[in-house]
Amino acid sequence: MTREQLVEQIFKKKTFLCVGLDTDIRKLPTCLANEEDPIFAFNKAIIDATAPYCVAYKPNLAFYESLGIKGMLAFEKTVKYLKVSYPHHFIIADAKRGDIGNTSSMYARTFFEEYDIDSLTVAPYMGEDSIKPFLEYEGKWTIVLALTSNKGSQDFQLFENKNQERLFEKVLMKTQEWGNERNMMYVVGATQGAMFKDIRKLVPNHFLLVPGVGAQGGSLSEVCKYGIIKECGLLVNSSRGIIYADNTENYAKVAGEKAHEMQQEMALELEKLA
Amino acid sequence: MTREQLVEQIFKKKTFLCVGLDTDIRKLPTCLANEEDPIFAFNKAIIDATAPYCVAYKPNLAFYESLGIKGMLAFEKTVKYLKVSYPHHFIIADAKRGDIGNTSSMYARTFFEEYDIDSLTVAPYMGEDSIKPFLEYEGKWTIVLALTSNKGSQDFQLFENKNQERLFEKVLMKTQEWGNERNMMYVVGATQGAMFKDIRKLVPNHFLLVPGVGAQGGSLSEVCKYGIIKECGLLVNSSRGIIYADNTENYAKVAGEKAHEMQQEMALELEKLA
Repeated sequence: MTREQLVEQIFKKKTFLCVGLDTDIRKLPTCLANEEDPIFAFNKAIIDATAPYCVAYKPNLAFYESLGIKGMLAFEKTVKYLKVSYPHHFIIADAKRGDIGNTSSMYARTFFEEYDIDSLTVAPYMGEDSIKPFLEYEGKWTIVLALTSNKGSQDFQLFENKNQERLFEKVLMKTQEWGNERNMMYVVGATQGAMFKDIRKLVPNHFLLVPGVGAQGGSLSEVCKYGIIKECGLLVNSSRGIIYADNTENYAKVAGEKAHEMQQEMALELEKLA
Repeated sequence: MTREQLVEQIFKKKTFLCVGLDTDIRKLPTCLANEEDPIFAFNKAIIDATAPYCVAYKPNLAFYESLGIKGMLAFEKTVKYLKVSYPHHFIIADAKRGDIGNTSSMYARTFFEEYDIDSLTVAPYMGEDSIKPFLEYEGKWTIVLALTSNKGSQDFQLFENKNQERLFEKVLMKTQEWGNERNMMYVVGATQGAMFKDIRKLVPNHFLLVPGVGAQGGSLSEVCKYGIIKECGLLVNSSRGIIYADNTENYAKVAGEKAHEMQQEMALELEKLA
């Protein structure tokens, strides 16, 4: 998906919501217990209920891998279902991969060729040759971890050199030598609040993938205050706050309502840009 | 596997070789073309030929994931084969995972419970809560990326604060607050040569997993000169230099010979410790 197509979807549907498919077999509603593939059944119902209110889905690979082969089958089925039934939704494989060049090339092939997914999250620790293989795919996006939403983000990401440049800022600057605002995004946690101001100085036009609204405590209005740009430039993710909002047979309906609420808040933020 | 058990194997077999199972379907000898599962057939033959000369195997997940479900089945079969036929060999899942706490927990469950693998490589960028879930498993090892073997290691790992402390040194120091020399190792590339001297000042007793000997150009004698300790403290990995040393029907025999050569070099290094 190109940047123009993504921006078009955002303004047409008045939403920049990404629904995180962190589907945990231990948290599924009991009504799914007899399904042949309860993970896929859950995802399908969540997708059908939330699709009008979001522009992106982000399955987190850990949740699928933890179930071995049957988890990966559910992941594949979910991706195929999205591609066939909701071809205008942007798909993010949240995998946080990163390895030496020849290995990153293998990961790129897996996610961009085998699964034909729009984008992949990537960890920057190993530098240039760990990231560049992902950037070679036309029409695909590499989403680099910059300042994450978790408490541990302080341990290394804020490590500062003698010019008061912090590691996440170094990552934001250095990676722009390899990719651009049409094939690269950054992960910036919603819990980082006012840090968005510093970040927009370094990446004024890039899209930011923003986890951490909801269960992790980040605020949508604060993220927008400092992070939104003319072309929106944000994909705000919510996982647990939407997909586990209800645990009865109404789970999909309630997930749809939660997504709708977020869409309405987002529509107000987008209106301010007009 | 405990530290004592690993050290015992090293001195008994006079080797600290780890064979990297970076099995690439495009590089297999043509004689395997008619195998039902050529990846597993290749791994099994390589393992049988090299097992006397190494103490560890390191399958790199990227190579298996890139083949989708059938790749992951080959990975599972390889791990099972090792556990049944070579229970004294240490198994490293080279996956370089790392995510927020609840997601790292899922990964830990996958590799340490589902697959029951001895150890996993982990990327430190996301800090404490991304690493701690792995350290909670008794008898399992977390192998943290410190200074990697690739060219891109210079981009961020050498980022330096005002006290001339570099990021990889910060990682070595900070992570010791969370784990210890009985459940944590570090990745240090063989290509880093004299840097081992600096590293041993910070982690005098930890085991180091050392990739980059062979195809990537690192030297075993230099690694040993600065990195070896009384209990050895090294697992030196070779992947391509062993498993792809020959491309005919003799591939396994030649891989065994290459592993034997490395074992002989290693035996000399271990003798020096006596």
